[in-house]
Amino acid sequence: MILEQVHILERFLAIRSKTEEICKPLSPEDHVVQPIVDVSPPKWHLGHTTWFFETFVLLPNLKGYKVFDPDYNFLFNSYYESIGSRVIRTNRGNITRPGVNEVLKYRSYVDQHMKHYLDQNPGREVIQLVELGMQHEQQHQELLIYDIKYILGKNPLFPAYGKQNVLPKKEASPLNWLNVEEGTYQIGHKGQGFSFDNEHGLHTVFLHKYAIADRLITNGEYLEFMENGGYDNFRPWLSEAWEWVNTNKINSPEHWHLVEGQWHQYCLNGGLLPLDLNAPVTHISFYEADAFAKWKGLRLPTEFEWEVACKRYGKIDDSSNFSDTGIYQPRSQNQGNNQFYGDVWEWTSSAYRPYPYYEAPEGAVGEYNGKFMINQMVLRGGSCATPRNHIRLTYRNFFSPHLRWMFSGLRLAKHI
Amino acid sequence: MILEQVHILERFLAIRSKTEEICKPLSPEDHVVQPIVDVSPPKWHLGHTTWFFETFVLLPNLKGYKVFDPDYNFLFNSYYESIGSRVIRTNRGNITRPGVNEVLKYRSYVDQHMKHYLDQNPGREVIQLVELGMQHEQQHQELLIYDIKYILGKNPLFPAYGKQNVLPKKEASPLNWLNVEEGTYQIGHKGQGFSFDNEHGLHTVFLHKYAIADRLITNGEYLEFMENGGYDNFRPWLSEAWEWVNTNKINSPEHWHLVEGQWHQYCLNGGLLPLDLNAPVTHISFYEADAFAKWKGLRLPTEFEWEVACKRYGKIDDSSNFSDTGIYQPRSQNQGNNQFYGDVWEWTSSAYRPYPYYEAPEGAVGEYNGKFMINQMVLRGGSCATPRNHIRLTYRNFFSPHLRWMFSGLRLAKHI
Amino acid sequence: MILEQVHILERFLAIRSKTEEICKPLSPEDHVVQPIVDVSPPKWHLGHTTWFFETFVLLPNLKGYKVFDPDYNFLFNSYYESIGSRVIRTNRGNITRPGVNEVLKYRSYVDQHMKHYLDQNPGREVIQLVELGMQHEQQHQELLIYDIKYILGKNPLFPAYGKQNVLPKKEASPLNWLNVEEGTYQIGHKGQGFSFDNEHGLHTVFLHKYAIADRLITNGEYLEFMENGGYDNFRPWLSEAWEWVNTNKINSPEHWHLVEGQWHQYCLNGGLLPLDLNAPVTHISFYEADAFAKWKGLRLPTEFEWEVACKRYGKIDDSSNFSDTGIYQPRSQNQGNNQFYGDVWEWTSSAYRPYPYYEAPEGAVGEYNGKFMINQMVLRGGSCATPRNHIRLTYRNFFSPHLRWMFSGLRLAKHI
Amino acid sequence: MILEQVHILERFLAIRSKTEEICKPLSPEDHVVQPIVDVSPPKWHLGHTTWFFETFVLLPNLKGYKVFDPDYNFLFNSYYESIGSRVIRTNRGNITRPGVNEVLKYRSYVDQHMKHYLDQNPGREVIQLVELGMQHEQQHQELLIYDIKYILGKNPLFPAYGKQNVLPKKEASPLNWLNVEEGTYQIGHKGQGFSFDNEHGLHTVFLHKYAIADRLITNGEYLEFMENGGYDNFRPWLSEAWEWVNTNKINSPEHWHLVEGQWHQYCLNGGLLPLDLNAPVTHISFYEADAFAKWKGLRLPTEFEWEVACKRYGKIDDSSNFSDTGIYQPRSQNQGNNQFYGDVWEWTSSAYRPYPYYEAPEGAVGEYNGKFMINQMVLRGGSCATPRNHIRLTYRNFFSPHLRWMFSGLRLAKHI
Repeated sequence: MILEQVHILERFLAIRSKTEEICKPLSPEDHVVQPIVDVSPPKWHLGHTTWFFETFVLLPNLKGYKVFDPDYNFLFNSYYESIGSRVIRTNRGNITRPGVNEVLKYRSYVDQHMKHYLDQNPGREVIQLVELGMQHEQQHQELLIYDIKYILGKNPLFPAYGKQNVLPKKEASPLNWLNVEEGTYQIGHKGQGFSFDNEHGLHTVFLHKYAIADRLITNGEYLEFMENGGYDNFRPWLSEAWEWVNTNKINSPEHWHLVEGQWHQYCLNGGLLPLDLNAPVTHISFYEADAFAKWKGLRLPTEFEWEVACKRYGKIDDSSNFSDTGIYQPRSQNQGNNQFYGDVWEWTSSAYRPYPYYEAPEGAVGEYNGKFMINQMVLRGGSCATPRNHIRLTYRNFFSPHLRWMFSGLRLAKHI
Repeated sequence: MILEQVHILERFLAIRSKTEEICKPLSPEDHVVQPIVDVSPPKWHLGHTTWFFETFVLLPNLKGYKVFDPDYNFLFNSYYESIGSRVIRTNRGNITRPGVNEVLKYRSYVDQHMKHYLDQNPGREVIQLVELGMQHEQQHQELLIYDIKYILGKNPLFPAYGKQNVLPKKEASPLNWLNVEEGTYQIGHKGQGFSFDNEHGLHTVFLHKYAIADRLITNGEYLEFMENGGYDNFRPWLSEAWEWVNTNKINSPEHWHLVEGQWHQYCLNGGLLPLDLNAPVTHISFYEADAFAKWKGLRLPTEFEWEVACKRYGKIDDSSNFSDTGIYQPRSQNQGNNQFYGDVWEWTSSAYRPYPYYEAPEGAVGEYNGKFMINQMVLRGGSCATPRNHIRLTYRNFFSPHLRWMFSGLRLAKHI
Repeated sequence: MILEQVHILERFLAIRSKTEEICKPLSPEDHVVQPIVDVSPPKWHLGHTTWFFETFVLLPNLKGYKVFDPDYNFLFNSYYESIGSRVIRTNRGNITRPGVNEVLKYRSYVDQHMKHYLDQNPGREVIQLVELGMQHEQQHQELLIYDIKYILGKNPLFPAYGKQNVLPKKEASPLNWLNVEEGTYQIGHKGQGFSFDNEHGLHTVFLHKYAIADRLITNGEYLEFMENGGYDNFRPWLSEAWEWVNTNKINSPEHWHLVEGQWHQYCLNGGLLPLDLNAPVTHISFYEADAFAKWKGLRLPTEFEWEVACKRYGKIDDSSNFSDTGIYQPRSQNQGNNQFYGDVWEWTSSAYRPYPYYEAPEGAVGEYNGKFMINQMVLRGGSCATPRNHIRLTYRNFFSPHLRWMFSGLRLAKHI
Repeated sequence: MILEQVHILERFLAIRSKTEEICKPLSPEDHVVQPIVDVSPPKWHLGHTTWFFETFVLLPNLKGYKVFDPDYNFLFNSYYESIGSRVIRTNRGNITRPGVNEVLKYRSYVDQHMKHYLDQNPGREVIQLVELGMQHEQQHQELLIYDIKYILGKNPLFPAYGKQNVLPKKEASPLNWLNVEEGTYQIGHKGQGFSFDNEHGLHTVFLHKYAIADRLITNGEYLEFMENGGYDNFRPWLSEAWEWVNTNKINSPEHWHLVEGQWHQYCLNGGLLPLDLNAPVTHISFYEADAFAKWKGLRLPTEFEWEVACKRYGKIDDSSNFSDTGIYQPRSQNQGNNQFYGDVWEWTSSAYRPYPYYEAPEGAVGEYNGKFMINQMVLRGGSCATPRNHIRLTYRNFFSPHLRWMFSGLRLAKHI
């Protein structure tokens, strides 16, 4: 067994076991529900990430491999048209069997075979698929955290997932501006490490000079917007955003609750807690991020501005708040690194569209990213639910502009 | 302790434990989902039936009683506007906490206090509420069976709830007619035993002479209707029924599946099994029952015709198929009793409206029946999911004409 | 030409011309829209009633008859599955061609041929179809009035259809009770005159003794209900009614508007006028009629009670307010006839179901009534939009319980 | 009166009269309906464009001006939150009064006052508002043509708006590629002429070298895609596009009809006509344009690529097919100008987002463009429904990706 295999096997097992660890505090009942279409049952995540390895790695490559259960392809396919029919998405929360224990057996079965298969010294191409499967599983780890938060946080009992974080409360520093001069810049991934197809198409963009804030917007600043009639005044809102606000009676970020005149926030660790005014605001839609920026007379950065600024001013360091910290909540300001990484995904003003030269890969994995490049906005930088080794400068996350069950937030920008 | 108390306590405990017995074969995951609005999560049934005793019996009557958890009123109220706000019905399936074990503790807590309370020799009025609570719980036992069947039967794996029934297959006897002569008849409940408010208003009706079939319509007879283009020809269908057929692409009763050219039926005991042509057809809507009758050139009986005929020709005997048999599926013909009781609820041609002199009781229990008397049809006779001691001649069940997840079927009638 | 033919031809021409007279005050634009699914464009009524004669009388019976335009069958079929496909109901308001003038030419063409045909001494059976077509057209005259009222009354300009009625204002007399003793009664149509199939099945019912109000409920009495929190208190409402109130934010009858603290009513003649407290309340749903009655501690009569009482206490006289008066609004109390006929259709507590012995006629006309006998309630007595010679004791009108764009109202009843 | 005033008055009157000319062939009935939410009634367009001048020019600037009717602000406001409440968009098609004639009187009244006002030598700022109003009216002239086409083209009678065009049929030339080299380019409007705010923010972009087709894609080429299973194969479709195809059962462009095995196209002039294989494909959504390009292994140009290429290779000449030709249908290839202008709006691959430095104007006109910059795609070049003097190089049109009732089409691009 050569070194790379050892390395990939170790990483494989670590990632697989991390997923199960995330689900540990859950009851069997917590694993099964789907309160909104965007949330998938934790049990489904456990099965789907496993199905990915079974379908794309083992079945076509491991000689004599027998699928754990032929029905699972139907149950755990997410959106791959190439792979056949599937449970429609809105029905995921109605499937009580197989139960959690059975799905864990499925995981164990596939892991055993993956171990066996990785011992066989598979070729480069398959290794790349395994790598993709691991990155895919890390993405689902992050979704799991959002989904668990939604499942527990919408329960009228507000049960906590973990113990309340004991963190030093830091006051947010005054907001300063980081400048970037006009010029052409390289955008997109290059180099050896893993990256998704949507980062490819290394290309040049021209940027006019601009300034970008040196930290995220805080709950306290967002509360000012609210107290200033933010949700009652159409002016800063996009037309369809204003309709969204009114139709859904939106009057605060997701997971905020006004309890006896005091704003609280549901947190995975600790449950319903008083709002920390110095922590970055999170669980806001693009609509809200954009309205806040306009209310301030400013704007969001483009994803290119973000990438160029982050390359110069951002860094991942020990104070970066990723899922590895287990805090699962953005925290009062992390000095020194300008908060580009971790804490919250930052809405950019860029629509999610292919880069020049982008090409979707052949086959089913070609359905991974490209087919979603419409009516979504790009977010950058990772969050407190992102594994530290999963994020990078060029990573493009994307969501529909009305969504906010994820850890999303904002940073301001302006032309200078 | 006087005899009646002993008696009611015994019955109380037996009914309470029966509910839990029904849920025994379920996994925790099975307890929590709500695949359609009509289905409630088994866990919710366990909690709601308990909440009924806590709210209507213990809290107003047992001195010093402390509720198990003040949030449970919000979680387990079904539709009682008088008792305060509640989880909206479509959200029942998103509530994972309290878990099944916690709800069983709630049951145990309330049962302890009920025992204690019933020992205190409560007055007549409260005893009546306890009686209502027990009847209510038996109704939920029946709903539990429908709901479990739906949860498991819509799972692509078709998991069985219990072992396949081993039953003698009987051939359906030729359909004969039972005659009733013209005249006035008494309708509604009289006597000492328990009855619901909707059976009250003992009153007289005039019936023209008619004949009613001596048995239920079978799967085989219904299949003939299907093979005769039953679902493709608008003629026998009510206008909104025809729209329902087309919008929902209905082409067979609920829980029927065509597997390799052979019709199967999902059964709680045994899972997916070949259709028994001699068993009564079930899981049909009023629309389908009515269309079948019209296709035959006949009609459904009114609820009055049914009651008068059943009084004369029906009986509950040892061959009656109630939930006590544990078969949970209508079975090939039960001779001798004309099948009026058990097996399937029989759709009548009567809309569910109040009897003359009907009055809803005072207070919250007044919301039990009266407020649902619109746009629903009456069914009579109980089913294989009804407890034997819960049914009676005058019992009026009711459902919207499009519903069919319950054990519903039909019997023909005609004027003579 | 024999007398009966003369007679029918005269009536035919009179009815046909009445329909056009109703549409006279309308602009071409008024003829074309469909603001809600229940309202049909006036142009469609003009065409559809003509299509009825063309399709059911001329085409099968008049030798050599050529249809005016082969596309009109598609355009003007309402709901006859037997006659082929058609514009879906919700699309009726999008069809601008043929225009009103073209449709009037169609009417004229068909009328010419009908004259010609009726001269040919057609047989009894066809005469019956012509009779049905005339009754059908009178029903559409009434619908036209509702629909015109809706089209103009929902326009923010509240344009009037005709000049304000100048009527003596009468004060409502105190409400008295008319008694009917217990016994069996004959229900349904007998005799020579025209009647619809749904009145057939002459049969006997048994009624317990009861009393019925000697007049309709007034706007003033209904306003009391409103001011007593009628729309804010769930108690008198059926469960689905209460949901309807809340979903649709209902807080008054249809066509009521609160203008500077004073309730007004949109009237065809005169437009927006101050509410006449002594006139019968109208444009209320069954839900509202039923809630009002329950709030009073009383109830609505069954359709049988209504028919028996009307036979004894009701009469059509010169003070009866039918469409022939051209008032098009129920008016302050008409003494002497107990208001059973005209003014408003009276909601009964009876669901619309077939009478014993009811049989739908053969062929397309069999689709006229029977297929709608589900989830609707019966109304009796005709309204200020009903032609006087169209109503009779046994006439059964029917609407879904939530509808109220027609002239509907209520009369109270009670057991004694 | 100075020359500029003369000039603007002449243009004002010409534009105003052109709008009425477009509506001339319509019946009053045609003016009033709204078959889908995107279509507005022609009568509404007539009123709304007039309201714009009344509200933004006359009312604040012409001393003593009295509005024609105070209710019209409510009736004819489109989406200006700043100006008060309005008829909700989906209700526009239910408003039959004021009728067409009344609205024409309103137009005449406002035109009189505009003439009077423009004689008074108004200041620069107001002239700019008048200019905006004229451009606005030209946009509505274009929408009118789409909407009329939809209203007549969805009528089962397929009535023609005008006489069939007699045009020389040209064969489409082979598709060639126009190259553009890598570099930085200026984007956005500069100079004196009118432009919309969304073209402002003159800025620099960097483009990699690329090639763009020298003509539009034809019906014939699109038919190939269809015959190649274009609508049956998920591969070239964006994920939400594929859902759109299946939910709406899309299998051809809008206004295409298969008549006895031969594809036809509804055309304003001539009605239903056999498909011209050499004419540019039109009435396709972004989803379809994008899928076609992917099926070809190519892509759509960005709006920047389009603008740079058009600047170099495009021109408006006498063969350009704008609304002034009265053809109202894209036509077989117009040689020499590479078809960049006229015929059809070309879908680009760019999401509609603000340019750098974009700022919405103050006040109500600030609602003109900016608030729609989300979930829409940019189209360029004008169409056969665009007035020739309304289009320019930098003009940005925008629609949601699923819309296709407008004259939309596509041109291919590729990296080289």
